[in-house]
Amino acid sequence: MPDFDSETTLGTLTGVGIGPGDPELITVKALRLLQAAPVVAFPAGVRGRLGVAQRAIADWLSPQQTQLPLKFPYVRDPATLAEAWHGAAATVWPYLAAGQDVVFACEGDISFYGTFTYLAQALQHCYPQAQVARVPGVASPMAAAAAVGMPLTIQGQRLAIIPALYAVTDLETVLTWADVLVLMKVSSVYQAVWSMLKQADLLHHSYVVEHATMANQVIYADLSQHPCLALSYFSLLIVQPQPIAAGILR
Amino acid sequence: MPDFDSETTLGTLTGVGIGPGDPELITVKALRLLQAAPVVAFPAGVRGRLGVAQRAIADWLSPQQTQLPLKFPYVRDPATLAEAWHGAAATVWPYLAAGQDVVFACEGDISFYGTFTYLAQALQHCYPQAQVARVPGVASPMAAAAAVGMPLTIQGQRLAIIPALYAVTDLETVLTWADVLVLMKVSSVYQAVWSMLKQADLLHHSYVVEHATMANQVIYADLSQHPCLALSYFSLLIVQPQPIAAGILR
Repeated sequence: MPDFDSETTLGTLTGVGIGPGDPELITVKALRLLQAAPVVAFPAGVRGRLGVAQRAIADWLSPQQTQLPLKFPYVRDPATLAEAWHGAAATVWPYLAAGQDVVFACEGDISFYGTFTYLAQALQHCYPQAQVARVPGVASPMAAAAAVGMPLTIQGQRLAIIPALYAVTDLETVLTWADVLVLMKVSSVYQAVWSMLKQADLLHHSYVVEHATMANQVIYADLSQHPCLALSYFSLLIVQPQPIAAGILR
Repeated sequence: MPDFDSETTLGTLTGVGIGPGDPELITVKALRLLQAAPVVAFPAGVRGRLGVAQRAIADWLSPQQTQLPLKFPYVRDPATLAEAWHGAAATVWPYLAAGQDVVFACEGDISFYGTFTYLAQALQHCYPQAQVARVPGVASPMAAAAAVGMPLTIQGQRLAIIPALYAVTDLETVLTWADVLVLMKVSSVYQAVWSMLKQADLLHHSYVVEHATMANQVIYADLSQHPCLALSYFSLLIVQPQPIAAGILR
């Protein structure tokens, strides 16, 4: 823990989205800030495994940098989550107070369902003088569409993105409104979603991408063949019924 | 124009999203491919000005690289668009046929309302043997949220993204379903959108970001003060009514 000195200029906490998993999908800006920071924080892995962001940035770091794995439990209880977020803020603050810049690396984009939001909000709530900056990153729906080799959206298409964990019952409503649908974190509700897509006759236009852009990436196209899938946490589902632009097939 | 030889290994057309405008928001992977490509294509500018992608990559290129500005008119007529897309494909194909790799740089992400989709589809329709690859990029809604300094989405929030040009009448329907709303290309419909947001009492939770991450970036927060705005084509609007995570303010 660094010494505290009230005269010291505060360090800045910068959240950088490091992209979906391929280490090369970090932006040039995020990489520059990451490599210049004396302190690098990231979500700690679970069950003894490195986290996605931690693995993706490992080769970009040098031994001189302090590494701070921060615990963000995969639970839904607000009290447990809030305790973890405030704990993470309390871990980061002494470095900032001592004038050291901290870069927090999070998977995907920082603003899009990102852990950085909770760290930044807890930090600014507990230490209102804290300085926070943000560098956007490549989000997983865009990475998954590129991996499949199709557009996520074209022309006038309306896009709906829902964190599937909470919203299976919404699916029918959404499908009446949206042209393209992305379900994040689809693993726990896959079977229910599959049944609804079958009823809507959309299985042939649905794709599951697991671990997009990572070495263990798997793509399932034409889900009619896949009523049951044992998917990892990092899986998303895209429904894209009209991926061909009007006028192309003249 | 390069020579054609039927024995030559075909070159690959790789679409790379170069991010929202800040040259440093290109990914490391896109930059590596961009700088290694003998031929670099991009959407041509209009009215004598350089295009966004062209400006963002200018300093990354070397004089040895062939530059191909491709015309994608800002119109809605399908026949005119299709003619432009097929023309662009015909411009790129001879280089690929001669074994030269071509990188197409497009602003934002390639799969998200991106011009690359139309080029790739026209190319593969006219020259089925063409090889196409894709590298995702940072999309403008994520860049705009980071610029404002707020989350785009948190926790269970449902996100709707609509190309505003076509969909003002949909706005009320969307607002009954979505927690967070992004209107792309909002400039031409701003006043109608403003009236609807006023009626829904959402102006205090709405943000307009013009030229996100570029030198001329402008942010309008609390739109109640801005019933009229003369916005550029590269403007988007975010409605985010609940940006603070539950549990933070304990």
